[in-house]
Amino acid sequence: MATNGTNGGEAPKPTHRFDPNFTQAVIDGIGPNATPRNRLVMGALIRHLHDFSREVELTIDEWMAGVHFVNAVGKIYGDSKQTRNEAHRVSDILGLESLVDEIAHKIVTDGEMDPTSSSILGPFWSPNAPFRELGGTIIQDGVPPNGRVTKMHGVIRDITTGKPIPNAVFDIWQASANGKYDFQDPDNQTPNNLRGKFRADENGKYWFYCLHPTAYSLPTDGPAWGLLQIMDRHPMRPAHIHIMVTHPEFQGCTTQLYPSDDPWLTTDTVFAVKPDLICNFKPLEGDDKAVLELEYNVNLAPKGYKGKL
Amino acid sequence: MATNGTNGGEAPKPTHRFDPNFTQAVIDGIGPNATPRNRLVMGALIRHLHDFSREVELTIDEWMAGVHFVNAVGKIYGDSKQTRNEAHRVSDILGLESLVDEIAHKIVTDGEMDPTSSSILGPFWSPNAPFRELGGTIIQDGVPPNGRVTKMHGVIRDITTGKPIPNAVFDIWQASANGKYDFQDPDNQTPNNLRGKFRADENGKYWFYCLHPTAYSLPTDGPAWGLLQIMDRHPMRPAHIHIMVTHPEFQGCTTQLYPSDDPWLTTDTVFAVKPDLICNFKPLEGDDKAVLELEYNVNLAPKGYKGKL
Repeated sequence: MATNGTNGGEAPKPTHRFDPNFTQAVIDGIGPNATPRNRLVMGALIRHLHDFSREVELTIDEWMAGVHFVNAVGKIYGDSKQTRNEAHRVSDILGLESLVDEIAHKIVTDGEMDPTSSSILGPFWSPNAPFRELGGTIIQDGVPPNGRVTKMHGVIRDITTGKPIPNAVFDIWQASANGKYDFQDPDNQTPNNLRGKFRADENGKYWFYCLHPTAYSLPTDGPAWGLLQIMDRHPMRPAHIHIMVTHPEFQGCTTQLYPSDDPWLTTDTVFAVKPDLICNFKPLEGDDKAVLELEYNVNLAPKGYKGKL
Repeated sequence: MATNGTNGGEAPKPTHRFDPNFTQAVIDGIGPNATPRNRLVMGALIRHLHDFSREVELTIDEWMAGVHFVNAVGKIYGDSKQTRNEAHRVSDILGLESLVDEIAHKIVTDGEMDPTSSSILGPFWSPNAPFRELGGTIIQDGVPPNGRVTKMHGVIRDITTGKPIPNAVFDIWQASANGKYDFQDPDNQTPNNLRGKFRADENGKYWFYCLHPTAYSLPTDGPAWGLLQIMDRHPMRPAHIHIMVTHPEFQGCTTQLYPSDDPWLTTDTVFAVKPDLICNFKPLEGDDKAVLELEYNVNLAPKGYKGKL
């Protein structure tokens, strides 16, 4: 039971006026057959949850509001036939996906060349994007009225040698000029519009046509928006292009690229902007297919490369 | 953005290898119009969530499992037409409701008489329970085959004077011998079976008939059960009687009473047992309506009584 005091020796000296043995008793409830990892993760989760509650002296009304919030988050998932992942969105606005991405992909190098920073995958990547020819376009449904076609190109390199990586796969997806991905916009977009995979040439180079990206708002009709409102935050993501660059011999890089003049760059509502992902779109002349140019080079670490931990 | 370093001066010295400015940047995203309380609660929630994630180096698969878990919890709420409150249950098995109850109701006295400990309300209290006559019974649908009728009685007292509190209201609710409350068991129980309110007499005394309570399992078909399984824990609650004792001039006491011989007493899956709530059911002779007797006296603090903080 919570207050029998038998676990008192294991608990740290309390800094509060509540039962000093309670949290350890809950953690000690984890049974002998839990895996070591589950024991570690659940023990730490319980400890932080309790420490949080005592620290702010969480009220019964606030706890109940949290219970209703969790129910509402998953209710939308069910009501949308499991297509609207509101729990993913809530974790994003709390910075959790961005943090977990850093934990998974942090590489600190000693050398002069750093791998391209990773950023969050988000909910709109598709495993079904088709391969397209180098020099092709991902704009399948015509250029929208306010769309600005951009020629994007660059080189994919190995951070340990500086040499190009032939045949690396460059997967790109982006929202249209109305701020919506094909999934969200079936009236205006066919499947795989603004998606495509390109295989780099023998010099590690890729090039194709896409749109200058458009800033957009997270949905403002669900629990995530309610949470943003109580924090007095806006729901905007800066304009961005999603990319996922892979090669069998290298650690893949999933990330997002941001125009340097975007007004939401410093207040991204999902905290996914990093300095090396900010880039300049430049006016392009002499190409009748595009009005802008974006050069972005991607640096990958070989598989097994650990860097400086 | 997350890594621009402008908030570095406010963050504590990092004890990890990750961006030391990230968490403070997310907290600093809370806008100027958030209420002071929302700023405090959400700031602490973000800090503990991030500290937990870094401490265990939460993997992307684990984060995604958490996202799916939250969606599944609320999906059951929606699918059950909002009658099955799985988020409440999950917070209970993590000890959160019991902790929040302690935070709300902790009274430390200097005197010899302590107020009766509070315990969690749980999801089965009803605002519609009828008043019944002193000496009446809450067993409305007949005694179930394995039910043991108990005469319950006691005195409700003021902790500051030791004197009885006339007219205090004693609200009781309990599961039947099959472990189910009326809400959960419409085929066997009519509404308000095993519920009732009694008004104490001029000597602060109450008495009525109820059942010896029965231990029961939380549901084993949802996300809460999945969480218990990864922690290698059982789903059992010890047998208990819920009571809520109120009077306009006193701080109400919502709590649960447990038979001292219950096998689940020391491992209650919602951590709601406290020493002064454990009581002895004794054989009763000379009363043809009951085979057991339970005496339980309840002590209330006057409104405004703060105790020793």
